[in-house]
Amino acid sequence: MNSLSSELIIFNSKTKQKEKFVPIKEGFVGMYVCGPTVYSKVHLGNLRTFLSFDLINRYLKHLGYKVRYVRNITDAGHITDDSGNEHDRIGNQSKLEKIEPMEVVQKYTVYFHSILDTFNAIPPDVEPTATGHIVEQIEATQKLIENGYAYESNGSVYFDVLKYNQEHNYGELSNRNIEELIANTRELDGQSEKKNPQDFALWKKAAPEHIMKWNSPWGKGFPGWHLECTVMSCKYLGETFDIHGGGMDLKFPHHECELAQGKASTGKNPVNYWMHANMLTLNGQKMSKSTGNSILPDELLSGNNSLFNKAYDPMVVKFFLYQAHYRSVLDLSQDALDASEKGFNRLMNALETLNQIEAKESSTIDINNWKEECYKAMNDDFNSPILIAKLFDATKFINSIKDGKDSLNQEDLDELKTTMNVFVFDILGLQATSNSDSKHLNLVMQILIDMRNHARNQKNWELSDDIRNRLTEAGIVLKDGKNETSFGFD
Amino acid sequence: MNSLSSELIIFNSKTKQKEKFVPIKEGFVGMYVCGPTVYSKVHLGNLRTFLSFDLINRYLKHLGYKVRYVRNITDAGHITDDSGNEHDRIGNQSKLEKIEPMEVVQKYTVYFHSILDTFNAIPPDVEPTATGHIVEQIEATQKLIENGYAYESNGSVYFDVLKYNQEHNYGELSNRNIEELIANTRELDGQSEKKNPQDFALWKKAAPEHIMKWNSPWGKGFPGWHLECTVMSCKYLGETFDIHGGGMDLKFPHHECELAQGKASTGKNPVNYWMHANMLTLNGQKMSKSTGNSILPDELLSGNNSLFNKAYDPMVVKFFLYQAHYRSVLDLSQDALDASEKGFNRLMNALETLNQIEAKESSTIDINNWKEECYKAMNDDFNSPILIAKLFDATKFINSIKDGKDSLNQEDLDELKTTMNVFVFDILGLQATSNSDSKHLNLVMQILIDMRNHARNQKNWELSDDIRNRLTEAGIVLKDGKNETSFGFD
Repeated sequence: MNSLSSELIIFNSKTKQKEKFVPIKEGFVGMYVCGPTVYSKVHLGNLRTFLSFDLINRYLKHLGYKVRYVRNITDAGHITDDSGNEHDRIGNQSKLEKIEPMEVVQKYTVYFHSILDTFNAIPPDVEPTATGHIVEQIEATQKLIENGYAYESNGSVYFDVLKYNQEHNYGELSNRNIEELIANTRELDGQSEKKNPQDFALWKKAAPEHIMKWNSPWGKGFPGWHLECTVMSCKYLGETFDIHGGGMDLKFPHHECELAQGKASTGKNPVNYWMHANMLTLNGQKMSKSTGNSILPDELLSGNNSLFNKAYDPMVVKFFLYQAHYRSVLDLSQDALDASEKGFNRLMNALETLNQIEAKESSTIDINNWKEECYKAMNDDFNSPILIAKLFDATKFINSIKDGKDSLNQEDLDELKTTMNVFVFDILGLQATSNSDSKHLNLVMQILIDMRNHARNQKNWELSDDIRNRLTEAGIVLKDGKNETSFGFD
Repeated sequence: MNSLSSELIIFNSKTKQKEKFVPIKEGFVGMYVCGPTVYSKVHLGNLRTFLSFDLINRYLKHLGYKVRYVRNITDAGHITDDSGNEHDRIGNQSKLEKIEPMEVVQKYTVYFHSILDTFNAIPPDVEPTATGHIVEQIEATQKLIENGYAYESNGSVYFDVLKYNQEHNYGELSNRNIEELIANTRELDGQSEKKNPQDFALWKKAAPEHIMKWNSPWGKGFPGWHLECTVMSCKYLGETFDIHGGGMDLKFPHHECELAQGKASTGKNPVNYWMHANMLTLNGQKMSKSTGNSILPDELLSGNNSLFNKAYDPMVVKFFLYQAHYRSVLDLSQDALDASEKGFNRLMNALETLNQIEAKESSTIDINNWKEECYKAMNDDFNSPILIAKLFDATKFINSIKDGKDSLNQEDLDELKTTMNVFVFDILGLQATSNSDSKHLNLVMQILIDMRNHARNQKNWELSDDIRNRLTEAGIVLKDGKNETSFGFD
């Protein structure tokens, strides 16, 4: 364990304050993040959430924790929105695209994985699916009925929110008051089978035309969305686990319902730290497909859109996202992306410059203090914009050293290099953009060409031939010119 | 539909003859291929199978069929081998790696998808998991008991092979005779709960320490491997579907048992065309981890292995695999790969040349006849080596046209270009590899790493230090591991 891990502070959405992070089991972290419902291409706002938790996962692992990071795939289509309406999103998309629901699931799961891979996100340690836990969801529903917190009605099973609220506090996570919720609810058709409009489905009776359905003690149906996450987090992380994350929009009702289900089922508080990532807006407005103020990740990367005048590298977009704290609203715009592109290039150039710097006798910069500030930023609720500001401080003093205005001794220079690499590549998960491979190839080829020339000057034909032959095998041809040797591809 | 689709011939492993392909529903094909058990890195032999069916999927789609291609993931660990032994491969790997079974599943599923993506295989249309179909497997087991073909014994449920064989023919797919099977079976410990050693588990009682288990009418247990494929193929493709594929090693007992389960369950023949991809050997011997005669896909691509003296591009490996018919045994060797690399480059160069060719007044080559022969090859049970021979014919006449010895008119030139592109990129699924700087960088770095190791072995510290220092200047850091040296960017 990194000694700095003891200083980690996390903002807990439930208590609404920053708290010292103390894991249930020393050295281990269990983290559950709500994954996508795979009925459409993941949108940029969701991408931001998943990249926020990628950063958190990477930093926890860097601190030395053995993290079990669980992120689900919602592949059974039941979604309940704020007003208690029920939509079968996967089923609807299936009708629209005229393919089977599980083909919809596969298509958008493949897209989701591919996009996250493009952004160099580390896959979760377990990626459970709702359809992979039907048995467990039926059993969890039975347990909630046995415990008196759920009731069957017309082939569906509902969670009894008022009953739960008698002993617990429904609304404690999202700071809602149940009386107000009730006062604000419009009574909708077809909801009369519930005792109360706030009650939510644990198991939903399937209409005859519904494709994705399973037999249960209550007839053919499908599981409730909220229950899915309770069942899967509990199965892989235990009845109480460390961190539960997701987008801000999931706080209510989804996470509120998860919290209620957990307590009603086991009597225990299921989650120690609730974390919520904030919204991404586009040109100052909420993103919305219907108004056209919306862009998909692949449209942003390909430049194939009407909102931006160029394509952006995924690493530039990622750098842009991390320039805001995960709990702040962030606005996507041409200017902001262009500024991030400049910043990203400045950082990458500084990393190159750093490699050419030579150590001096003494240091004029306090590298240890700078390094501590980097950790302090991340330990303060994963504050990536402060971290990035510190990295920009480093670009300044790297350039100042290059210009001979400052200097570092060997120890400090090594420390600076290591720390920059750890934060830029391991923790932020940035990658040098693709054209840097060609740059490196040129540099490395020059080393080999020099070595071969040196060998030839020394009449070491064995070595010079060996270099040429190995390059030929690699599909690279050396061309000996009058004054210099160049290379090309076979 | 392409008019040539009516000429497609498929070798049916069950009838052991080539048959005209007639789909159940005109214009549609349902195809099920047994996917990997995700407890280890997919090996090259399995990769060959999956790439064979990628070719078949691509060609069927090219012919105009709406294909529903289903390939499962076996993520519940129950495997029955030929002799009736039962292994929980995922459970065993879980103990070995000290991670949860579902972490094993995730790790190797991610690897599997990544490798297939590297080889430019198209994902299946549905990719169901065994754990995603526990309910269905329990129900299928119940139905087989009701139909009289299965019995419960000590918390497990077995398929009654002798009972089935009274009315059907167990062994009809793999050409085995049940009396001989019985005569050749050693009686093993713990199998006494079966009526007959050939009986196979539909549902297996779980030992208390077993992690992946579910409640069932017979107590806690897990589903049988054979049943998984019957349930998922039936769910997504119907009780009788067009094509069932897999590796030759799955013919018995896996596919034989699937066939029996299907018939015993519905009374219908579940599959119209059985297709089996043949084995890949390595240097003339069967691949085997225990003898060391084994190589993983990523080892072949990185060059990080002791069997081959260089790294190979995935497209070269794919081209090599397709140079044999899927039903033939294929031997992997340095010479064969080198020859494929030359051939692949010749083909890619010809495609470049083709783009520079200008049309003339008249044609001296019969392009239509050549094109027909390409289709004829693929229509003859997907004969890719014959197709590739035809593509090499094309490289010859492309070069001959370039040299002015032959000519094509505009129409024929367009036809040649279109047909080449269709077969090379759409059907074989090859990709141009030029400009692959990162590949070359890896190869060249391996040369430098080898040279440095050689220098160190010879105590030539000057040279070894020089290599390291020059690389550091170029922004590349060498990382000396226990057995090997890797590199990263500074």
